[in-house]
Amino acid sequence: MIHVAVLGYGTVGSGVVEVIETNKKDIEKRAAARLNIKYILDLRDFPGDPYESKVVHDYNVILNDPEVTVICETMGGVHPAYEFSRQALLAGKSVCTSNKELVASHGPELISIAREKHCNYLFEASVGGGIPIIRPLNYSLTAEKIDSITGILNGTTNYILTKMDKEGADFEEVLKEAQEKGYAEKNPEADVEGYDACRKIAILSSLMCSKNVRYEEIYTEGITKISAADFVYAKQMNKSIKLLAMSRDKKEGFFAMVAPFMISRTHPLYSVNDVFNAVYVHGNMLGDSMYYGRGAGKLPTASAVVSDVVDCARHPGKTVMCFWENEDVKVADIESDQGKFFVRVKSGQKEEALAAFGSLAEINVGIAEEFAFMTQVMTEKEFNDRIEKIGGCINRIRILSA
Amino acid sequence: MIHVAVLGYGTVGSGVVEVIETNKKDIEKRAAARLNIKYILDLRDFPGDPYESKVVHDYNVILNDPEVTVICETMGGVHPAYEFSRQALLAGKSVCTSNKELVASHGPELISIAREKHCNYLFEASVGGGIPIIRPLNYSLTAEKIDSITGILNGTTNYILTKMDKEGADFEEVLKEAQEKGYAEKNPEADVEGYDACRKIAILSSLMCSKNVRYEEIYTEGITKISAADFVYAKQMNKSIKLLAMSRDKKEGFFAMVAPFMISRTHPLYSVNDVFNAVYVHGNMLGDSMYYGRGAGKLPTASAVVSDVVDCARHPGKTVMCFWENEDVKVADIESDQGKFFVRVKSGQKEEALAAFGSLAEINVGIAEEFAFMTQVMTEKEFNDRIEKIGGCINRIRILSA
Repeated sequence: MIHVAVLGYGTVGSGVVEVIETNKKDIEKRAAARLNIKYILDLRDFPGDPYESKVVHDYNVILNDPEVTVICETMGGVHPAYEFSRQALLAGKSVCTSNKELVASHGPELISIAREKHCNYLFEASVGGGIPIIRPLNYSLTAEKIDSITGILNGTTNYILTKMDKEGADFEEVLKEAQEKGYAEKNPEADVEGYDACRKIAILSSLMCSKNVRYEEIYTEGITKISAADFVYAKQMNKSIKLLAMSRDKKEGFFAMVAPFMISRTHPLYSVNDVFNAVYVHGNMLGDSMYYGRGAGKLPTASAVVSDVVDCARHPGKTVMCFWENEDVKVADIESDQGKFFVRVKSGQKEEALAAFGSLAEINVGIAEEFAFMTQVMTEKEFNDRIEKIGGCINRIRILSA
Repeated sequence: MIHVAVLGYGTVGSGVVEVIETNKKDIEKRAAARLNIKYILDLRDFPGDPYESKVVHDYNVILNDPEVTVICETMGGVHPAYEFSRQALLAGKSVCTSNKELVASHGPELISIAREKHCNYLFEASVGGGIPIIRPLNYSLTAEKIDSITGILNGTTNYILTKMDKEGADFEEVLKEAQEKGYAEKNPEADVEGYDACRKIAILSSLMCSKNVRYEEIYTEGITKISAADFVYAKQMNKSIKLLAMSRDKKEGFFAMVAPFMISRTHPLYSVNDVFNAVYVHGNMLGDSMYYGRGAGKLPTASAVVSDVVDCARHPGKTVMCFWENEDVKVADIESDQGKFFVRVKSGQKEEALAAFGSLAEINVGIAEEFAFMTQVMTEKEFNDRIEKIGGCINRIRILSA
């Protein structure tokens, strides 16, 4: 019998209980053990809830119970989740988490404690919700040298951009609707500014490098400047606009970025719409592969947490494979990264733009006051210098190379 | 040090050697052991090949060498691959295979021997080439009850259908071109008649059920009757035509089928083109997820075989999780399966068709001699009875429900 404690009885935490209840027979077969939810830690009481009697308010009850060997940390936030996870691991209890902030900020330390204490710190649910991506990276692509990861990692922004694309609506309008429907938070900053996607690509990049990619060093740009007009141009070019989180292991250095990109209709990520997420991985032997599914939501995320519980149950006293050392990766300055750009300037800037950018491809959708074009490949620095020279632009969006 | 033997130095076998050579450092780190390719079994000699000295012609050399603990079976075909694999497992040597015919026909027996002998029979490369799908099903979706799998599992037919869609060409024409380019075999029957996809969906279905789905019981229809005209209609309906391999665990029974389907532009499988493959999985908690990548090819397939070698290396003396019991699943008669159909009849049959099918949706693309329509949902039996009543049809294609 594996005794499990759930920290935080909110959306994901109650989902963990529901997943275990609903699929108990199958899960126990795969875990090769019976599962018992012994405690649920929450500040609140839940009168009338079938698990009411499991609720405790003092974490020490869980920590000091030697029967509890697996803890599901579904609290979110860095504190006190960090302290709780650390204490649990030091006591030899495995921790399965959906907490991307904590994994991105303290992952290598917690993984290293787990290794010392012969238990596990697992985080399948921290990226891509229900999409199995951590385990494929750790257990499946073991014969590969992964050199690039490109992800649609935030459901809220993908929902907003999909709506803008389909309905020709503007950002503020769609955001308001998404908030009313509960698809976006009242304070949507973490999503629309790309901070959430940044944490997630930091985690994936760290696994790709087997070292620590600090999320603070990843250039991050949100979607608040994307307008209905940008989508008119995108359509004309057979493209859409997606918020991409990416990292690239190149000869010139290790690059990572979160930013809106123009993406071609033929790219598999083009069809990833609404709240769905996807991770596109390139390895030196297998080429491109993609993992697609629900990036968030109570049950998909909880299912990923429970799959970690099964992994813990099957490996008592053993740390499963995860390479993420506490040594920082040198993230290259984005200024030296290269690509093409889509640019909109005022029609009065046309001559200057032609002079500054030389060879460019005009995109005409009949907006009289504007001159829009696609540049050649150049570094971010070269691009910024030229834009500065012509006195700025209305907007510019990077273009994903195929 | 793990000593490995490779059986068959053809495309995949030489790929295994190349993958291990190219990514040796990373692979050995993940395997937590050094790897040595000790023998290569082949009928031929390979003078001048860097691995010339490893080539042996007698399997007993490998079988009787206690140092060899992992065998890569990349021979293909059922015999003598079956005898070789069985002998290896009985001797406690793990086998990693790319051989879908053998896995589909003798999987449960070989898995059960591996379990008795505390070694492994692993087959990540047998389905979807470089797409990690076996390990995600076995290790990742452990909190799920999977109720449906829909796959594009054959690269040759997907290449042909993609070409037909894009170029408006007919089947025979594209097949010939594919044969000239080496994308289709001289005898293309296994691919174009759906036999290859049938073996692969039998394997995935067996893992979904944890029991044995006999490939002989899966209704299998190829793509040889699909014509350029069918794609004209498909386009009119915003659809394409794909060879799908699917299984469904329904209240009415367990259904499995390989057949061409009309598929909507909004479905993620719609964008899986050329030689790419994808597996679309529905679980009761996480909903839809998809796994996409190269379904064949030397290095992607070899990379999957080597990922199995790593798994063996990390679990010496231990059988990793795989539920596929030697108990046959009752596959329901396709006659009771339900769906919508796209149908083309001669224009003279229009009145009869209207009478026989009642409510239907006409599809008009301006082919004067034909009357084409989409039916309501009905069973295969109901459909066949009605078609028989009106004296047959020019063609009919099932429609994938969204």
